[in-house]
Amino acid sequence: MNSSTTTYGLHKLPGGDLLSVPGFTGAGVSCGIKPEGALDLALVDAGREMVASAMFTRNRLPAAPVLLCKARLAQNPRIKTVAINSGNANAMTGVDGREAALQMLETLESEVGAPGFVMSTGVIGVPFPLEKVSQGIAAYGSTLRPTAGKDVASAIMTTDTRMKTTAYTFQAETADGVHTFTVGAMAKGSGMIHPNMATMISILATDAPIGVDASRSILKSAVDASFHRISVDGDTSTNDTVLLLSENEQSPHHLTASGIASVERAVTQCAQDMAKAIVEDGEGVGRVAHITVSGAKDDSQAREAAQAIALSSLVKTALAGADPNWGRILAAMANTQADFAEDRLALTLGGITVFLEGRPLVVDQGQVDEAFSQKEVTIELDLGVGKGQAEMYTTDLTHDYVTINSEYTT
Amino acid sequence: MNSSTTTYGLHKLPGGDLLSVPGFTGAGVSCGIKPEGALDLALVDAGREMVASAMFTRNRLPAAPVLLCKARLAQNPRIKTVAINSGNANAMTGVDGREAALQMLETLESEVGAPGFVMSTGVIGVPFPLEKVSQGIAAYGSTLRPTAGKDVASAIMTTDTRMKTTAYTFQAETADGVHTFTVGAMAKGSGMIHPNMATMISILATDAPIGVDASRSILKSAVDASFHRISVDGDTSTNDTVLLLSENEQSPHHLTASGIASVERAVTQCAQDMAKAIVEDGEGVGRVAHITVSGAKDDSQAREAAQAIALSSLVKTALAGADPNWGRILAAMANTQADFAEDRLALTLGGITVFLEGRPLVVDQGQVDEAFSQKEVTIELDLGVGKGQAEMYTTDLTHDYVTINSEYTT
Repeated sequence: MNSSTTTYGLHKLPGGDLLSVPGFTGAGVSCGIKPEGALDLALVDAGREMVASAMFTRNRLPAAPVLLCKARLAQNPRIKTVAINSGNANAMTGVDGREAALQMLETLESEVGAPGFVMSTGVIGVPFPLEKVSQGIAAYGSTLRPTAGKDVASAIMTTDTRMKTTAYTFQAETADGVHTFTVGAMAKGSGMIHPNMATMISILATDAPIGVDASRSILKSAVDASFHRISVDGDTSTNDTVLLLSENEQSPHHLTASGIASVERAVTQCAQDMAKAIVEDGEGVGRVAHITVSGAKDDSQAREAAQAIALSSLVKTALAGADPNWGRILAAMANTQADFAEDRLALTLGGITVFLEGRPLVVDQGQVDEAFSQKEVTIELDLGVGKGQAEMYTTDLTHDYVTINSEYTT
Repeated sequence: MNSSTTTYGLHKLPGGDLLSVPGFTGAGVSCGIKPEGALDLALVDAGREMVASAMFTRNRLPAAPVLLCKARLAQNPRIKTVAINSGNANAMTGVDGREAALQMLETLESEVGAPGFVMSTGVIGVPFPLEKVSQGIAAYGSTLRPTAGKDVASAIMTTDTRMKTTAYTFQAETADGVHTFTVGAMAKGSGMIHPNMATMISILATDAPIGVDASRSILKSAVDASFHRISVDGDTSTNDTVLLLSENEQSPHHLTASGIASVERAVTQCAQDMAKAIVEDGEGVGRVAHITVSGAKDDSQAREAAQAIALSSLVKTALAGADPNWGRILAAMANTQADFAEDRLALTLGGITVFLEGRPLVVDQGQVDEAFSQKEVTIELDLGVGKGQAEMYTTDLTHDYVTINSEYTT
């Protein structure tokens, strides 16, 4: 997930976060869902109504706030405020849960006097603690600060071990010359990560004005190049949401086509930072694999093969053990429908080709072991039939993953 | 995987195995592939040429012996002898591996003077130790015994913790009255278990004469009702083979249609015993879940939903922790394309319905915890849209699974 970040005046803001975007304030609140006073409610105020677009989970049992906000955004793609609780996903909670999500949104909007957006993350199937969340939202006005970006990012964490934020300034061409804008982001997620945005929430925001259509197109492109390229455990969740906020039409700066392309690059960079942070913080992760499949019939087949490798429990446990048992990689690929030519297959681990033209190569086992014991292992597979390509990041499957996920609700 | 076993005179032979079939002898040999003199070569001699049919892995990088024996069996569905080595799968070994498989088969056939069948299981991508295997086969004549069924079953084990054998006598109608026949089986497998027979090998044999066409049809039906209903980790391997041997045309007993149906039931029972033994011996398994999906649009959609649940790392870790985090079960189903009616969904764990008609029920949590902590947990999900049904057995995902699979080759 590398893009050309140095050109186009993209500059990372050290310690930057979502609230680095001018005009944003926020708060991380403890409303009593999580034990021991941990932050469990994030409030974000953009300071003005912004243009909003979002992508939601494709799970067919979406959580109540997903259903609600998807419908709201279709009616009115404008948002000034966002509330996100952690500790309870408000998923599979039936009619009561849908009513609770609506009340959460209405409480927020009446507090702020502007259109809002709500998200929930945490355990599923447990009645939603509406009263706690509503009380937390009532503290809204008195707690917002422009420097609370870290608190906001902490309040949305579940099994995450660290908060995930990023921000950049970038230059973009407008009708009245080149201007400098800001893009900031935060995210949560570590389990149930898989293409189509399993258990992850992210907000991306910029003060660059791009309009609703461009917002949707930029978000889709950024998500395809980031969150859709990571896998932790193949499960997709009920609550995944990525929200993009951008400056509204009041901005005096009208972006040119080149300027909009600059915004897309900047938003994509933020999304890639967040996706990388999520996979590196995958539940129990000790090692990350960067899988590249090339030579496929087309990009779709390359992606199918890359996903099969990324998902294989046997590949992931081999990664955990730093055991370059590469037959499992080829076997996982060969269980897909992706075309390949056995006598033109090439598998390369950490730069060392171990299988070429249908047979294993004699390699220095110590070097292969070394390559497979890095924090980031590169796996390159050429299917030998075409020009299709895809890349995926996946995690190892460790004892800690089992511990975390076998004890989540109890 | 329950069939009506008490009718039709099906009687389990205590301690029975593949060699319980009259005329069979075998040997478990140590040929030096595994360390410390462990048994690693199984030899089976049927005493006469039998009718043979087989089902093989659908992995598109099949091991050398799979390619070879598939072609041989298509030419001549007769077999007298089988050799299976463990410790090396002869998979992804290129031209050299294919040549080695052919030599292994030719050595066996020249030793026995009759058509044979070879299988390999173990690590993939490592050059095949042909010399060791050939020397082991050379001991053939002097070692065969009718009482060696346990040695034979032990010699094919890899990460299995116990050998897997079963045998029955059963009655079947023939043109000259009801006769008693025998069916015996052995199997290996514990990792890479998934429908389409991931890393498993099984031989089923009977002295009932059924002919080639009936043999193929009975094997397919038995495998569909057994090995295709279990999942350990979703990976499918390069070597899976199920072989069915049955009495040849020399038998004086000509089965009626009813008699052939009796054979099918007996063979299916053996296959189900073996499938159940494999899933219970799944790598690191502490707990097995029996998943039944009903009310689907059709059986295929029911199977898709059942497999998604069986495969979910989050469901499997919840099982490991005896944590009835049932939202993960519904979320896994809702990631498939199977039709469901949210307001008619019903999810029942160990007989306790936890989700009904679109909302969670208030249940005695202690009872649900108890149900989810059994050695065999039942998960019943009604999709509420039709009459399609499917069942699957899956395993929990435990620390031991991670340990076993992260240290397999090193």
